[in-house]
Amino acid sequence: MRTDGRQPNQLRPVTITTGVNKYAEGSVLIEVGETKVICTASVEERVPPFMKGQGKGWITAEYAMLPRATHSRNHREAAKGKLSGRTMEIQRLIGRALRSIVDLQALGERTITLDCDVIQADGGTRTTSITGAFVALCLAVNKLSKTTQFAKYPITDFLASVSVGVIQERALLDLNYEEDSKAKVDMNVVMTGNGKFVELQGTGEDSPFSREELNKLLELAEGGIEELIEMQRAALGEFADRIGG
Amino acid sequence: MRTDGRQPNQLRPVTITTGVNKYAEGSVLIEVGETKVICTASVEERVPPFMKGQGKGWITAEYAMLPRATHSRNHREAAKGKLSGRTMEIQRLIGRALRSIVDLQALGERTITLDCDVIQADGGTRTTSITGAFVALCLAVNKLSKTTQFAKYPITDFLASVSVGVIQERALLDLNYEEDSKAKVDMNVVMTGNGKFVELQGTGEDSPFSREELNKLLELAEGGIEELIEMQRAALGEFADRIGG
Amino acid sequence: MRTDGRQPNQLRPVTITTGVNKYAEGSVLIEVGETKVICTASVEERVPPFMKGQGKGWITAEYAMLPRATHSRNHREAAKGKLSGRTMEIQRLIGRALRSIVDLQALGERTITLDCDVIQADGGTRTTSITGAFVALCLAVNKLSKTTQFAKYPITDFLASVSVGVIQERALLDLNYEEDSKAKVDMNVVMTGNGKFVELQGTGEDSPFSREELNKLLELAEGGIEELIEMQRAALGEFADRIGG
Amino acid sequence: MRTDGRQPNQLRPVTITTGVNKYAEGSVLIEVGETKVICTASVEERVPPFMKGQGKGWITAEYAMLPRATHSRNHREAAKGKLSGRTMEIQRLIGRALRSIVDLQALGERTITLDCDVIQADGGTRTTSITGAFVALCLAVNKLSKTTQFAKYPITDFLASVSVGVIQERALLDLNYEEDSKAKVDMNVVMTGNGKFVELQGTGEDSPFSREELNKLLELAEGGIEELIEMQRAALGEFADRIGG
Amino acid sequence: MRTDGRQPNQLRPVTITTGVNKYAEGSVLIEVGETKVICTASVEERVPPFMKGQGKGWITAEYAMLPRATHSRNHREAAKGKLSGRTMEIQRLIGRALRSIVDLQALGERTITLDCDVIQADGGTRTTSITGAFVALCLAVNKLSKTTQFAKYPITDFLASVSVGVIQERALLDLNYEEDSKAKVDMNVVMTGNGKFVELQGTGEDSPFSREELNKLLELAEGGIEELIEMQRAALGEFADRIGG
Amino acid sequence: MRTDGRQPNQLRPVTITTGVNKYAEGSVLIEVGETKVICTASVEERVPPFMKGQGKGWITAEYAMLPRATHSRNHREAAKGKLSGRTMEIQRLIGRALRSIVDLQALGERTITLDCDVIQADGGTRTTSITGAFVALCLAVNKLSKTTQFAKYPITDFLASVSVGVIQERALLDLNYEEDSKAKVDMNVVMTGNGKFVELQGTGEDSPFSREELNKLLELAEGGIEELIEMQRAALGEFADRIGG
Repeated sequence: MRTDGRQPNQLRPVTITTGVNKYAEGSVLIEVGETKVICTASVEERVPPFMKGQGKGWITAEYAMLPRATHSRNHREAAKGKLSGRTMEIQRLIGRALRSIVDLQALGERTITLDCDVIQADGGTRTTSITGAFVALCLAVNKLSKTTQFAKYPITDFLASVSVGVIQERALLDLNYEEDSKAKVDMNVVMTGNGKFVELQGTGEDSPFSREELNKLLELAEGGIEELIEMQRAALGEFADRIGG
Repeated sequence: MRTDGRQPNQLRPVTITTGVNKYAEGSVLIEVGETKVICTASVEERVPPFMKGQGKGWITAEYAMLPRATHSRNHREAAKGKLSGRTMEIQRLIGRALRSIVDLQALGERTITLDCDVIQADGGTRTTSITGAFVALCLAVNKLSKTTQFAKYPITDFLASVSVGVIQERALLDLNYEEDSKAKVDMNVVMTGNGKFVELQGTGEDSPFSREELNKLLELAEGGIEELIEMQRAALGEFADRIGG
Repeated sequence: MRTDGRQPNQLRPVTITTGVNKYAEGSVLIEVGETKVICTASVEERVPPFMKGQGKGWITAEYAMLPRATHSRNHREAAKGKLSGRTMEIQRLIGRALRSIVDLQALGERTITLDCDVIQADGGTRTTSITGAFVALCLAVNKLSKTTQFAKYPITDFLASVSVGVIQERALLDLNYEEDSKAKVDMNVVMTGNGKFVELQGTGEDSPFSREELNKLLELAEGGIEELIEMQRAALGEFADRIGG
Repeated sequence: MRTDGRQPNQLRPVTITTGVNKYAEGSVLIEVGETKVICTASVEERVPPFMKGQGKGWITAEYAMLPRATHSRNHREAAKGKLSGRTMEIQRLIGRALRSIVDLQALGERTITLDCDVIQADGGTRTTSITGAFVALCLAVNKLSKTTQFAKYPITDFLASVSVGVIQERALLDLNYEEDSKAKVDMNVVMTGNGKFVELQGTGEDSPFSREELNKLLELAEGGIEELIEMQRAALGEFADRIGG
Repeated sequence: MRTDGRQPNQLRPVTITTGVNKYAEGSVLIEVGETKVICTASVEERVPPFMKGQGKGWITAEYAMLPRATHSRNHREAAKGKLSGRTMEIQRLIGRALRSIVDLQALGERTITLDCDVIQADGGTRTTSITGAFVALCLAVNKLSKTTQFAKYPITDFLASVSVGVIQERALLDLNYEEDSKAKVDMNVVMTGNGKFVELQGTGEDSPFSREELNKLLELAEGGIEELIEMQRAALGEFADRIGG
Repeated sequence: MRTDGRQPNQLRPVTITTGVNKYAEGSVLIEVGETKVICTASVEERVPPFMKGQGKGWITAEYAMLPRATHSRNHREAAKGKLSGRTMEIQRLIGRALRSIVDLQALGERTITLDCDVIQADGGTRTTSITGAFVALCLAVNKLSKTTQFAKYPITDFLASVSVGVIQERALLDLNYEEDSKAKVDMNVVMTGNGKFVELQGTGEDSPFSREELNKLLELAEGGIEELIEMQRAALGEFADRIGG
């Protein structure tokens, strides 16, 4: 039995609240159990230098935790004067994942920045950020579509992410912080609406894992991601139908 | 008439929600109009090096804005690798203001850090942070008091803050962003429950101000702060009675 | 009785020596008691990016202390790799104060940078910097006026600054270091030649202050600033008459 | 046909030269095709603060490229004053991977730092670093074992790493730079001598991948890693037999 | 003829004013022509970590220029967040030079920091700093000697420094800024009272120099340094006799 | 007798291997005894901002040591976030030295960057870097000359560097690390093929030196540099004849 009474293949309760920021082109508060992340999508009508003149857009992401998002207070990275390796790794992952379902050509020469700020952390902050940022991105693109005539809708598919892991020989879906710190194997999976992998990051620092274990974990992840995409669809309402259209 | 229909001496609607963070010893979400700030109070059982061995505690504050708290997105200070002068000025102000109503001797050798994270900004973020941080601080001290026998209750008085300013020759209370950017004179006032000044920061960069204007502004501030303290009292409930006791 | 025998409303001896730097467009050494600050004004024929294309000029300031300006040696901020919050706060204050008496339109698209370097510190370094920087600024504008035809003289009024404070219930003018470290209330006041306030920064971290105390402090400051402006007038000689003209 | 004439499941030529640094406790130059990395293992008789007093050792890694390791010269990270996200991600990966086959308890309170410096880069620098660092680590532990009585040999298994990817629908082993920049799917795999996964990092930013593709890639990786471990065994000679013993 | 009418072997006018800072244990303002440097010596009763427990003292130096010490204003290194290579090179040179004439054993476990702050620069700031810092150091050691019983006087010899250079085939002593920028060969020489070299830094970036030229330059330097030492002796008065005693 | 059995005027064995990097326009591995440095020359068809529009080229250098180039491991400067004073001093020296034998006008508006990365250090890394970087530079210029019609060959003379020092009253050529740490006087000399000095950096921090000692050291250096230039000539083969042509 899991500490919070869930089945091995059961997600924590998920809530996606849209429109939580009056300035951002797209915004959501996503809650997965006690993990809470504010995701905003900001549109700028220019691209970074390395993308200039290609007629294509850019999607990038930044990630941070409030100092007291965790059990004990963390120092602010702004005060320390640099981003930790963990932060950089996570924000690179979020950006890469979201670019995979955006047709940058169709988007045109503009940048959408996804800011994922963790208000409270209880495991799975990077996967929750990806799932929430996808919705914020869709809202921003939808807002853009009111003033911009896209030749093709720039979002090509749904995208969500979940963590899976192995604790005491059992594969479990959507680890909370307590489970995460006990897991021998820990894997973050990002998948599209059509069931393909965008990112797979598994680590068995404490205990290497076999092909069989890998397969079990991937099945759990597939199930969880299908459910998450249903919730994204509900949060987006009628806009959901434009995706991949 | 003000753009949002308020009287010159009228505050924006204020909401103080306590307990918004499950880890922090004290936490509030304070909303003053469209300005929203999460304030958490974190207790650590040690003091910074310069305070060691004095048998006294320490109160400090940090302040930040989410990148999209504002009309257009700001770069993160963590990514830029340093705090701006504005941020440092504000967090020094918040810390100084809160220390003024804490008996550091009574608190004992521990540090309470107030984190003020602006989720959405519409003017008055530093004054709102002070008003909210006071409540978070009280909640943390109250929690501490359950396990610590204080010789004397460490919070000596109420404390709140508000901005005032002059627009087109009229003194106005609690400026929103639009008003703030038009104001010729801009003043932040921090006062205690017994009606004394803790901080007074007035600037007339665009137009110096006279003693008469100063007096009008201070009267508006006094009225606003009295109201804010009433709301702090309500948010604290029964704990409010211990303050200054 | 004050430790140096002064009356409560008496300034320390003030000396303003002009022309102390052969390269700077304007320069002074200002001594207020044992506090000594070199102020230079440097003119550049361009404005910072955020001011470009507005046909207006810019005034900015930087402040620093030599490592042994103080009783014990301080580490250099250049060696530490960043400016302290205190330094940033002070240089923002100096810049803001001086901009208040410059007609940036009349100045034209150029920047004047005021460098205030504290050679020896004995209290009141920020107020002394403002008073000295004003004279350096006037000298630089005067030099500029020999080669530039200003439609209107860009300096609109005199400007000086002084500190006031409360020690053992007595309001005192122009605190030296020893007094400053004992003061319960500490206030820096910047005023113009026509007797209006440009900046008012009062703090009662150790003991909040009442309206009555505030009024006493402001009266002392007004008297001190009038005297300082007389000394600025003397230092500027015939150039003084052009101010506000 | 691959540009360099290899079969899809064929590694590039691999050379592992040991003892290339006269000071390091363990050192190798590993060449995989035109990719060349110097790996040194440095032993220190203390552990980082967060590991103190646990009676356990620590393994950590750092990674860098010489500025002209690549087609065009890169700026040095030391000159830029900070590590890139890519560098941090890679060195975290190398450290994690190597810790997975070290019994930190058996190692005792000491740190071994693996420095992987890329002299020339032609794809696969992170996987090559892991494969080479493993040998350097074994040499250092072996040297240690001459002066230290280990209760148990601290290296528990072999460890090697290789990249795999999909180009034009074909799964390929050990991509060189040219292939890497064309690959739609790119995966780095780290495995132990007993055929289990330690790290799996797959990304399909340009084109998500299916379970079938994943399986093909993992099979290629398993074959490549077996071959690499044979070469590690040859490079270690008689020391190889102590691993996992 | 030199631009300022000097003979090839003639120093600029030199003034050494002692006691210019009321807090520092030793202080001088040294003026060599239009180059002006404030040198302070600060004593601390501890040594840096790498010198601990050896029963020896330490001498170190820091160097900086006020932003407007030069023809056009320079950015502050504190604002840029790092020291330039030039600054580091100069302060390492000053420290090394001064350590050469201090018996660190005799000094005992304390640090003397020489701060050389260039108020106005007209060539030769590093050599002027060394010549001035020597006097500040002697004053500080002398002050120390009133409360400390030195087994042996810690200053073993005089020390001064001067620049020499080649302009249009002529060797010249003590270059001013204008000469320095035209010189094909530029050399800084540091010598002791007994006529030996402590530092020799010659550079012929624009035109390599022969042994003959080197010899001419060294002769000029020897002459100049003898004169500078006479001025140091005069500035130190009776204290001068204790040096090397 | 020297610890490695050499005569006072004897260099350590020197090997210069060219073409060690497949991407760089010029590259060598230079070994002087156990000191090993990889030098690459990288050509870019642009100049730094301060050289723009002058029709001239630029030569610059960067220097670094691998962390385990030394007896005990050093922290990476990239991880510390800044270059040490020593590194800056050395790379400024290398750049200055190489510029002295390049006709920047003849080179045309391009930059050649010499990267000197110390793989293993046993004394004399800066002088070895200069000697090796000269050969890498020649190879790059030679490569350039195949596609560029130089009006004049841009390399005007040979250039090499060696260290000399005094140990127990004896002048020695080419100090290894052990000797270097015992030397009372330490001097780095850079000379051209026609026997002139480009840089002379002598320091007698532990013991000042006389004119006689200086002369002995310079004679040793001259002899060593002649030999080094012979080896450069051999490494360059037929290209050597173009130098100064």
